[in-house]
Amino acid sequence: MKADIRAEITLEVPFQDIDAMGVAWHGNYFRYFEEARARLLRRIDYDYPQMRDSGYMWPIVDTRVKYVRPLTYAQTVRVIAGITEWENRLRIDYEIRDGESGDRLCRAHTIQCAVRAADHELQLVCPPELTDRIEACLAGEKSQGESPS
Amino acid sequence: MKADIRAEITLEVPFQDIDAMGVAWHGNYFRYFEEARARLLRRIDYDYPQMRDSGYMWPIVDTRVKYVRPLTYAQTVRVIAGITEWENRLRIDYEIRDGESGDRLCRAHTIQCAVRAADHELQLVCPPELTDRIEACLAGEKSQGESPS
Amino acid sequence: MKADIRAEITLEVPFQDIDAMGVAWHGNYFRYFEEARARLLRRIDYDYPQMRDSGYMWPIVDTRVKYVRPLTYAQTVRVIAGITEWENRLRIDYEIRDGESGDRLCRAHTIQCAVRAADHELQLVCPPELTDRIEACLAGEKSQGESPS
Amino acid sequence: MKADIRAEITLEVPFQDIDAMGVAWHGNYFRYFEEARARLLRRIDYDYPQMRDSGYMWPIVDTRVKYVRPLTYAQTVRVIAGITEWENRLRIDYEIRDGESGDRLCRAHTIQCAVRAADHELQLVCPPELTDRIEACLAGEKSQGESPS
Repeated sequence: MKADIRAEITLEVPFQDIDAMGVAWHGNYFRYFEEARARLLRRIDYDYPQMRDSGYMWPIVDTRVKYVRPLTYAQTVRVIAGITEWENRLRIDYEIRDGESGDRLCRAHTIQCAVRAADHELQLVCPPELTDRIEACLAGEKSQGESPS
Repeated sequence: MKADIRAEITLEVPFQDIDAMGVAWHGNYFRYFEEARARLLRRIDYDYPQMRDSGYMWPIVDTRVKYVRPLTYAQTVRVIAGITEWENRLRIDYEIRDGESGDRLCRAHTIQCAVRAADHELQLVCPPELTDRIEACLAGEKSQGESPS
Repeated sequence: MKADIRAEITLEVPFQDIDAMGVAWHGNYFRYFEEARARLLRRIDYDYPQMRDSGYMWPIVDTRVKYVRPLTYAQTVRVIAGITEWENRLRIDYEIRDGESGDRLCRAHTIQCAVRAADHELQLVCPPELTDRIEACLAGEKSQGESPS
Repeated sequence: MKADIRAEITLEVPFQDIDAMGVAWHGNYFRYFEEARARLLRRIDYDYPQMRDSGYMWPIVDTRVKYVRPLTYAQTVRVIAGITEWENRLRIDYEIRDGESGDRLCRAHTIQCAVRAADHELQLVCPPELTDRIEACLAGEKSQGESPS
């Protein structure tokens, strides 16, 4: 995944997410994406509380998931989330990888649009409340990257 | 169950609620109780929107569940909810019964207390916003019961 | 939605599916699709128990959801599911519509592939255990359609 | 909590567990108990796979939860599980505590009975498949405690 800003969580597939076929039910993956997305959005200081305070809601308007291999009980997996688009809408891509082998088990993305809370108007361009944070984060990483020597 | 006011829903146990042991995971029963409770509270016109508008929250502070027999995929069950206490706190009792045989599969109860939204103060007596509605409902049923002849 | 075989459920969005933003959390929609899909697969006598007995598993390998308008507490919605592809893989399309206005609130699809349970081998063509059932269902509907007089 | 054998997990309350009132929906606590219980049962090498291999199922037959204070989004909490009874049935007690203050937010317990998988017969005494493991764990801890110097 090529992403400007990334975050990652590690989790163990819990019992209650396993279905009668012995694998994680496909709808439960959205729990894993949600937790990885929260971690990612905290990196730019724009998690749900900050979103709300900024005067925008960011409903998910589109999602796609490709299930590559099933997840089983107590399997340790890494869920990686990365921002891949942030001009007109916020696109986040996800990968789930086996914690040991690193094999890719799932690919997905979600697309969120900004909706102004005051009048529920859909924004056709991402507001600076998001983009300034992303640029600040990228600038910080770049300066860190350049700072050594 | 001896209850002043009752309501009932019928549901089919859905696939995603079944666990790796082939039965409904115990935590999912709270979904069924929630839906029966909503139906019950609508009978007294005190569902969540009305609760919120009345200035009180009603968090669940205590619950007990006795699982008698497992629920299986696509089983049709009746979930019965009844108000059994409503002076100092709101107690609702539940039963889950098989849709065909009527056998009792589960018994449970929840206890909710009123918390005033304005100052988050716990109420030691149920406010009239609840009790007036219950009494009106009981009076209506009684008068309906008496009205014939 | 243009579908050979369709089914539909009606549900009321339950409290526990509503998130802190006051709308149904996007991951919960998969519960609604699952229930509509079960209803659809029963129409061709190929629900989960029949799948298992037929020697095939049908994991979901791909899904796409477009969230058009949010779902709110206690909203009555219709969830329509229809089989739109069944040669090499089973594609089911979904729509969620408001129960009163009929407005479309969501579009989605899922893709399932057959995996032979005995050796976990992915099938590149849908086995007759599925296709015969679909053809029988279509033939039955056609003959019903023709049998008037 | 006075328990012979204990385990603990730390988790952050995720967004999808928060309801329209802004607190974790009461039914979601069973997810947290489940994860703490899995950690506990692994300590005695008797997690779900070992249970199944031992020829017994251990359905939850009774549970009680006292919700002391609400859980909010992203709150870090410790969930402690301990075995408190294991002769005729397996009782596990739980506490949820705030990760920072240590304040107790919830108390609960679950009771499981052994059911022999072969004939689905309820066991009135816990089988040695459980009790031997508990005694081995306790002996190991005791000898560790004694083995100083």
